[in-house]
Amino acid sequence: MRIAIASDHAAFALKAELAAALVEWGHDVTDLGPFSDARVDYPDFGYKLADAVASGAAERGVALCGSGIGISIAVNRHPACRAALVSDPYSATLAREHNDANVIAMGARLIGIDQAKACLEAFLAGTFAGGRHEGRVAKLSHPTF
Amino acid sequence: MRIAIASDHAAFALKAELAAALVEWGHDVTDLGPFSDARVDYPDFGYKLADAVASGAAERGVALCGSGIGISIAVNRHPACRAALVSDPYSATLAREHNDANVIAMGARLIGIDQAKACLEAFLAGTFAGGRHEGRVAKLSHPTF
Repeated sequence: MRIAIASDHAAFALKAELAAALVEWGHDVTDLGPFSDARVDYPDFGYKLADAVASGAAERGVALCGSGIGISIAVNRHPACRAALVSDPYSATLAREHNDANVIAMGARLIGIDQAKACLEAFLAGTFAGGRHEGRVAKLSHPTF
Repeated sequence: MRIAIASDHAAFALKAELAAALVEWGHDVTDLGPFSDARVDYPDFGYKLADAVASGAAERGVALCGSGIGISIAVNRHPACRAALVSDPYSATLAREHNDANVIAMGARLIGIDQAKACLEAFLAGTFAGGRHEGRVAKLSHPTF
């Protein structure tokens, strides 16, 4: 799968570890930065990732910051993105099954590397269940405000 | 504080419990529905909550669904809302300190009632740290795409 990954400085090391895991699992990975642990603003990298997913350049995105909160808000500004902030693999599975999530978000200060990899695996293995969830997901593309 | 709360059917019971806790803690609570556990679409209630927070009718919002993922995506479509999906009180504190989150999201299938109340307390007690976080939060109001 074509997967884009982005973070802020707080999640720079986690980004490197997860990008390496994705490559090892056979995926085509694009690292959207940052490329050092110097301070950056998470919205800049969240928006880059949202553009990559919305354009189809990436089929899935991985968004990381200290808590995962800031960057997940940024990615979800784009109506074509559905970013799920998770801290356990069951949530990652639900995000795919119910929400057709195309981006997974995690917090580097909150999750250990093995749990993060397990979440990522569950997210990539999950399948959208369709059915009654389809209309709900469609509504996420067309906010009423 | 003026607090609006909304959910889907899966979180209908959790919404009632948290609304009661908020009233007990002295807040002015507006329940935006749903008003039964009949099936509804979480984006409809997420957008209602986003409108209430964006208009200033509510100072804070509480967004609940099965996993918290779907409704947090919906609320974050609105550039005036910053919804933090959390499963622990430390995340709720970080959401206030770093992201000036004005909405807390939780998943009824994933969190127990006592942990949910502890998250809500931490969220309401938390204070935005400002400083270097201000520019980042401002960027969340002005997506670049």
